[in-house]
Order: sequence, then structure tokens, then C-alpha cells
Amino acid sequence: MNYISVTLLACILPLAYAGKVLVFPVDGSHWVNMKILIEELHTRGHNVTVLRASNSWHIKETSPFYISITVYDDGGIEALVDTFTRQILVNRREKLSFWAHLMLISKSGKAIEEMHQNQLAMMGEIFENKTLMDLILDAKYDLVLTDPAFGSGVFLAHRLGLPLVLNARWTMHGEAHFEIAPSPLSYVPIPGMELTDKMTFGQRVLNVMGYIFQHIHKARFVYPHYHSFCTKYFGDEIQYVSLLQNADIWLMRNDFIFEFPRPTMPNIVYMGAFQCKPAKPLPGDLQEFVQNSQEHGLIVMSLGTLFRYLPQDITEEIAAAFAKLPQKVIWRHTGPRPANIGNNTLLVDWLPQNDLLGHPHTKVFITHGGTNGIQEAIYHGVPILGLPLVFDQPDNLSRMKVKGTAKIVDVAELDRTSFSQALEEVLYNTSYRQNMGRLSRLHHDQPMKPLDRAVFWIEFVMRNGGAPHLRTQSFRMSWIAYHSLDVIFTLLIISAMFCFLIYLLIRYLCLKIVFKKKIKSD
Amino acid sequence: MNYISVTLLACILPLAYAGKVLVFPVDGSHWVNMKILIEELHTRGHNVTVLRASNSWHIKETSPFYISITVYDDGGIEALVDTFTRQILVNRREKLSFWAHLMLISKSGKAIEEMHQNQLAMMGEIFENKTLMDLILDAKYDLVLTDPAFGSGVFLAHRLGLPLVLNARWTMHGEAHFEIAPSPLSYVPIPGMELTDKMTFGQRVLNVMGYIFQHIHKARFVYPHYHSFCTKYFGDEIQYVSLLQNADIWLMRNDFIFEFPRPTMPNIVYMGAFQCKPAKPLPGDLQEFVQNSQEHGLIVMSLGTLFRYLPQDITEEIAAAFAKLPQKVIWRHTGPRPANIGNNTLLVDWLPQNDLLGHPHTKVFITHGGTNGIQEAIYHGVPILGLPLVFDQPDNLSRMKVKGTAKIVDVAELDRTSFSQALEEVLYNTSYRQNMGRLSRLHHDQPMKPLDRAVFWIEFVMRNGGAPHLRTQSFRMSWIAYHSLDVIFTLLIISAMFCFLIYLLIRYLCLKIVFKKKIKSD
Repeated sequence: MNYISVTLLACILPLAYAGKVLVFPVDGSHWVNMKILIEELHTRGHNVTVLRASNSWHIKETSPFYISITVYDDGGIEALVDTFTRQILVNRREKLSFWAHLMLISKSGKAIEEMHQNQLAMMGEIFENKTLMDLILDAKYDLVLTDPAFGSGVFLAHRLGLPLVLNARWTMHGEAHFEIAPSPLSYVPIPGMELTDKMTFGQRVLNVMGYIFQHIHKARFVYPHYHSFCTKYFGDEIQYVSLLQNADIWLMRNDFIFEFPRPTMPNIVYMGAFQCKPAKPLPGDLQEFVQNSQEHGLIVMSLGTLFRYLPQDITEEIAAAFAKLPQKVIWRHTGPRPANIGNNTLLVDWLPQNDLLGHPHTKVFITHGGTNGIQEAIYHGVPILGLPLVFDQPDNLSRMKVKGTAKIVDVAELDRTSFSQALEEVLYNTSYRQNMGRLSRLHHDQPMKPLDRAVFWIEFVMRNGGAPHLRTQSFRMSWIAYHSLDVIFTLLIISAMFCFLIYLLIRYLCLKIVFKKKIKSD
Repeated sequence: MNYISVTLLACILPLAYAGKVLVFPVDGSHWVNMKILIEELHTRGHNVTVLRASNSWHIKETSPFYISITVYDDGGIEALVDTFTRQILVNRREKLSFWAHLMLISKSGKAIEEMHQNQLAMMGEIFENKTLMDLILDAKYDLVLTDPAFGSGVFLAHRLGLPLVLNARWTMHGEAHFEIAPSPLSYVPIPGMELTDKMTFGQRVLNVMGYIFQHIHKARFVYPHYHSFCTKYFGDEIQYVSLLQNADIWLMRNDFIFEFPRPTMPNIVYMGAFQCKPAKPLPGDLQEFVQNSQEHGLIVMSLGTLFRYLPQDITEEIAAAFAKLPQKVIWRHTGPRPANIGNNTLLVDWLPQNDLLGHPHTKVFITHGGTNGIQEAIYHGVPILGLPLVFDQPDNLSRMKVKGTAKIVDVAELDRTSFSQALEEVLYNTSYRQNMGRLSRLHHDQPMKPLDRAVFWIEFVMRNGGAPHLRTQSFRMSWIAYHSLDVIFTLLIISAMFCFLIYLLIRYLCLKIVFKKKIKSD
């Protein structure tokens, strides 16, 4: 590894307690969230250092909010994600055979494996760069803040002997709760199956089978790499899972307005929609366009960070559907300009999503169903038309559908008629807006803002050198001991022996009586 | 039942949103906590009505903070508790035989059964008093607030169709968490066994066996009464446990500074030490006495609401031990004045416990180990000498002992030497004070005061008509479905059938090959 540069642009506010936070982020849409935490920490006077890859996708080398340490990396997850997600859409659109789909799933497993390997390799290079490690150790950080979607930041915290705070929604095992909180599969749906917390018997069977399948899948593609890394640097005694479960605080990018209620843990802090803010005024050109939507309202469409544009045929269908509407449409679209585009539709490279969703004219948000977008829609009470594509998007949108706040359109089946129908339902059936309004009110009815809560607990860990009083003993236990299987087995054996002794005693007594009688009768 | 009176003394503050809260409290030390919630609700402009028994022990008929509805009741738990607790102490002190102890435990089971019956009878009388029920219905309360140690308040909420908030530490099943949160017996100790969250194999066996035993005990003495009540008033379809688990918010008089960390639920709100406040100046006579303790410090002794005084012989030993100390002692003691009392010891009928514990001269708190007292000691960082007697007291103190903040003396073995030794250890071994200081700092390092948090969630339930988005689906499920036993059984059967089919197929093929070979060789 070439240790490239350390930028020193962060301006340090002179506050009473300035902590030092070392951040090992995950690139892509995950960085959007991490950046908000970093900015807030910086604003409160803490010093943040970000470990970034030289070929980083979204993580800039220079920022007014953090110092960066750039590590040479030739892997990069951008190309992988881009190819993979685009291919999935093509497959679904072209209704390729089951076989083609299976091949893609297997390929996706490979792609995910490659990403984990890449992240571990990067961490290995950091560990073996003595100059860099000394620099990090000398800086005397107060904690490591990482996103456990890729788990190598967990190793970094352990190597440095620092408290660990996770900015989490996913771990390498799947949804982060499954890692530390009891998750009864009878009412906690596993990710990726679009199930709810009210399952039929058949759905419960699917949920359990899916859980087993996902576990096997991860055991094939992911665990072995973490296991080897752990053995190489920390010996056989230490398990990756224990290091992860040993985290002081889990800041969950989630809450029970969005997610189904489920068991939780003392060291889980919910910060769903922490990135949302009241809408700011729009920039001049947008403001004028939006102002003209007063009569019929505004539709906002954006497919997030991953999808820059949809295939041309889908785009044309959507454009044609939009053209027929009386509403104004702002569409974040960076591909070729659709021929069917109407006068009411404004194509933009980028849009101030939060400010647009918070505009009183906005009637519907058309989204791929990323967590950030959905939480912004909840925050501002805007109903959703969902075009789910990959990852957690179908699940996220199905949660919104169950709560009566979203309509979902299958991209593979999308044409101008079906798209129009769905859009008009969300526009004109008031229940969607009412239900989203209810969720929005629940979100705003909290004792503390989610971002403040998150930063409080990061600062808590810095002030107190961790939060061990909130971490259960479960992470020290084997699977057998945790589930008391050894105890149950022992008690069963003892009961069986007891019953057997009773049986022997009764048998002995009966025989004796029979024998006596026999003697008498003889 | 005679419906006696409705006091109308509560002054109603003119606030924007004045909610109406119906409180069904539990008498005795539980009332101490409930009263604090009521006072705070009143201060914030809500109207509180308390349903109280005519022979109430601590719940006054008139108060500036609530309207009371008095219901005739001839049961009363005061005498029962008093006789029972006193007898336990005598038994332990006199080292009565195992048989005598067993008889007492059986008697205590009977006493507890009687208390539950009494509370249910009172609720039955309320239900059957049409005038009173109409009055309550007409008042249009926003919610029912009750302590589920006796469960009949839960029936009241169901009968009135109102949201339910619990001020809980115990339910009729035991510790309240066991009712709604997953409680792995491998690291969650059951109450009454003085176990911790780090258990040996033997302790885990004890924990599981204790859990089974307690369940059987309750099934014998408690459940049947609730079951009959439920059937009588709501029919066979409804289970008491479902009504309880259906509660909107569980305000737990606990936290993870006091309790071992364990799984929790979205609708559990921790309000441990919510009753504590910064110390106020002491009244004149006490102030003078305390001021004179500057050189060596002050010892505060109180055995709470239940125990007015200890047997005379114990009292004399304690008085003699105190007399030898250079410290000043304030002792809440209402029995006969001990002959051994020293000049340094002040006997009082009542003491401002919170203010005394918050006084900088206070070095040690001698307590029976009630939750309130321990939480006040944590709040003010005062180490503890514990004299546990009954109920949760041994458990509470064992938690403090494990955290290095308390020394425990067995009352049955207490004499002036052992008492002095223990007291001097807590006085002069600085680790007790340091550890309690750490707990105190953790308590004060919260994003929100526990009382504010509790009242926020009571008001949340009033504003939103409940909090169903925080309640998991578990309460609707049978035990078998909840643990996925039906699913596991089904999957095992399918797997077995599949294996059997494979076996049949292989057998068939083998036979065919052998058969062919035979024909050939023939």
C-alpha cells in the first residue's frame, strides 16, 4: 500500500471538549449518511479523520469537515455495483429465463464476495503499513466510527484498542438487528422477502427457510474471508462476530415508524431520518418552475445515487406518462433526453431532494425506494410511487405499501398506462397522503431529534471511554450456552434418570409383592 | 361496593392540552413512585383521577394533585404485608427449621394470592357499580395509568377501551421484562436468586429451574384468579396476558445503570431514578446536626416504608455499633428507643432521604435495599451498606454488590462486631465510593431526565391515542407460533420425508442393478 496523503483542511473549533473520531466509512449511498454524522461532529467541535480509498467513489479527499487519510486501493466498488445493478434491471425487463436469473444471483454473490475481499485487503494494507499505524496510534483517537456493511472497520477498532460506534443498517450477515438483538422469526421478517410482521403459517415457513438459506449463502461467500483475516491478525481465539457484537453503540439508521416493531437492545440507538431537515428555499430557476405548479401540484422523481438512468424504453414510457399530466414534474435524469418529454417536465442533473419534498406543492415522490429517500418522504409527509430495483429497495417500499403510504410499480412490467394509473392513484386517492401524514406526525413527535440523539451517544462513548453497561453478555456466549441447550439437555437427562429410578423402584416393589404372594400361595 | 366520594380539590392549570388520566395505583411503596408521576402530570396541566380503596394505606383521599374516587374495600394489603415481612425476619433471626421456613413460604404464597384476590374483587365491584362506571365513562379519560404488580388496572383499561400505560417493575408473573421482552435465561437472571448476568453452568441450571418453579408457583396461586375474572367479564376469547402485553407503553422503574443489560422492546421506556432530585437544604434542626458532622462525615440509615422497626435485639446491636463511631448518624427509627444509643446518633420518625443523601457530608447509606433508596444512593453517589429483608431487596443489593458499590450484612447473623466491620469497610475502603461515583456519573449523563422521558411518553399516548407502532406482534401469537415450533416441526417432517424418498430411490436403484446383474450372471 502506498500511503498517499493526509489533508489538514478541517478547521478546528475551540470548544471545551474536542474529541477525536476515526471514521472508516462505506462508499456509495452509505457515505451520504456518514457524512451527515461527520458534519455534525465537526460542528460540535470534534476532530474527525476519515480513512478513504484512493479510488473512492463519493468520499472526497478534501473537506472542511474532516481530515482524510488516503489509502491506495485499486479495487473500488463503484464499477461492481454499477454493472451488477444495471444487469439485474435488464434481466427483469427482458424477462430472461430462470437459469439466466440464477446465474445473475450467483454472479451477485461473487460480486459481494469481491467487495468484502477488497475491503479486507485495504484494511490488511493499513495494518501492515507501520508508518500509517504509528500515525493513527499517535493521534490518540477516542473512538472508531464505522459502517458495518463491510466489517473491516471493526478490526481497526480492535487493533487500536478503541471504543467502537457503528453507523449501521446492515452487517455482513444481513440486517443489523439480527446480529445482536433476539429476532424471533415468527414475527421479524428477514430482509429481501417483502414479508411483514403479520405472517401466515406459509410465510413463517418461508421466513425460516430464507433465514437458513441466507446464512448458508453468507457462510459460503463472506464469512471465510473474515475468518482468515481474524486468524491472521488476532489469532484463533478471537471471532469476528464477537468483535462486532462487542461494539459500544449501534446507531441504527432506522426506527419503528419505518420498520416493524421488534426486540431491541440497550445499546441500540435509533436515528431513522436523522439526515432530514426542514426545507430550505429553492434555488432561483427551480423556485420559478415550482411556483408555477400551484394549481395542480408537483411530482418529484429521483432514483438516488446508484441509478443514474433507466434503460431508454422505460424512460420514454415514463416521459410519455408525465406529459399527459396537469402536474409539473421535476425529474432527476442524467441519460439521453427522452423524445416523449412534455412541457410540464423539467429534467435535472441533480435536485435538492429534501427541499423539494418539503415544498408544499409536492404531491408525490417517485423513488427507487432507498432508505434515505423514503425517510425524507416520511419526514415531509409526501406519499410515494415506488420503482424498486435492487438491494433493500423492494423491502423498504413494501413496508411503505403495508402502511398505506406507497404504491409500487414493477419496472419489468412498466408502460405508460400502468405507470399513469399508479401515479394517479397516489395523486388522487387521499388515503396515501393521510397515512403518510400520520407517519410524519409520529416522526416529529419524538423527545429528541434523531441526529442529536446519535451525536449524544457518540459523545457519551468519548466521555466515558465506551458504554459497557449497555452491552449484554450474549456476545461472550457460545450458541449452545446462549440458547441454554446444554442446560435443557442436562435437565432432560436428570429427569429421565429420575423417572428410570422411580420405575426401577416400582418394579422392585411389585416383584417383591408378587414374590411374597407367590411364597404365601405356595 | 359503596361508592363513597369524589374529591374535587385538584386545581387545573389552564394549558393548551390538558389530558385526562385515570390512575389505578398499587398501595405501599409502589405509591411513592406513582405519586411522583401524578404530581408531574398535574404540574404540566393534566387532570388526574385516582381510584383508591377506602382502607388505603398511603393513598390519601384529598390531594392538591389529583381528584380521588374512593371505593369501599375491606381487604387491605397493609396488615398482610406487615405480618408477613415481620415473620420472615423473625424466622431468619431465630434460625427456625427448614420446615418452618417452608411453611412460611407456603404462607407467603397464600398471602400473595389473597392480595391478588382482594384487588380483583375491588375491580369487580367497580365494574358492577353502574353509577360509577357511567361516571368514569362520561369523564372521557385519555388513558389508564396503572402499576401491573397487581393486574386489575389492565382489565379497567380494556373495559373502558382506553390506551394503557404501565408504571412497572413487576407484573403478576414476576419481573416485568419477562412479560414482554425476550429474556434468554442464559444471561438474564430471574428475580429472587441473587444471580448476575455472568453465570456458571450450575447457576444457569438454577436459573432455568427457578424460572420453571416460579411459573408453576404463579400458576397455582395467581393465574387462576385472573383467568376467572377475565372469563367472567370478557368471555373465553380473551387472555389476561394478551391484555397486559397489549399495553401501549411500559414505563420501567429501572435502567441499565442499576440492572444488568438485557434485551428490551420498542415500547419500554426506562425511567430509573426518576424520583430523584438535587438535594434541597435541610430543615433547621437536622441542618445543625449534619453541620456538626463535618470532620468525620454522616451516616444515614432508613429501612423504607415497609419496615417501621427491627426486632429490639438487632436494634440494640446496631445502636451499640453506631455509638463507637466518630461519624454522626441519622437513623429513621420509630420503635422503642434502644438503650445502647450513642450521643452521635439522632433517631427520627421520618427523614428527608433525598436531601440527606445529597448532602456532601453523607458517607454511607444504610438501607434495606428497596429500589427507591438504591436509586437515590446512585443518583447522589453514596455507597451502601445493605440489610436486605424480603421481596426484591436481596436482588437489588446483590446488583450493587457486584458493581462494587455495596456491602451486604445478613440480618439473621448481625451483631455489633459484624455490623461495625462491614460499615467500616464501606466507610474507609475508597473503592465503594469511587464505584458509586461512576454509576452516579452514568446516571447524570443521559440525553433527557428520566421523569421528563416518562411524562413525554404518557403525553405521547394521549396525543396519539396510543402507541401501536411500538408494540410488537408477539402478543397476538400462541407460544408455539411465537417460538416457530410449528414451522420447525413441519420442516423436520418434510426433511425426513425427503430423506426417506431418497433412501427408497437408492434402494430401488440398487435392487435393480443387483437384479440385472443376477439375470446376467444367471
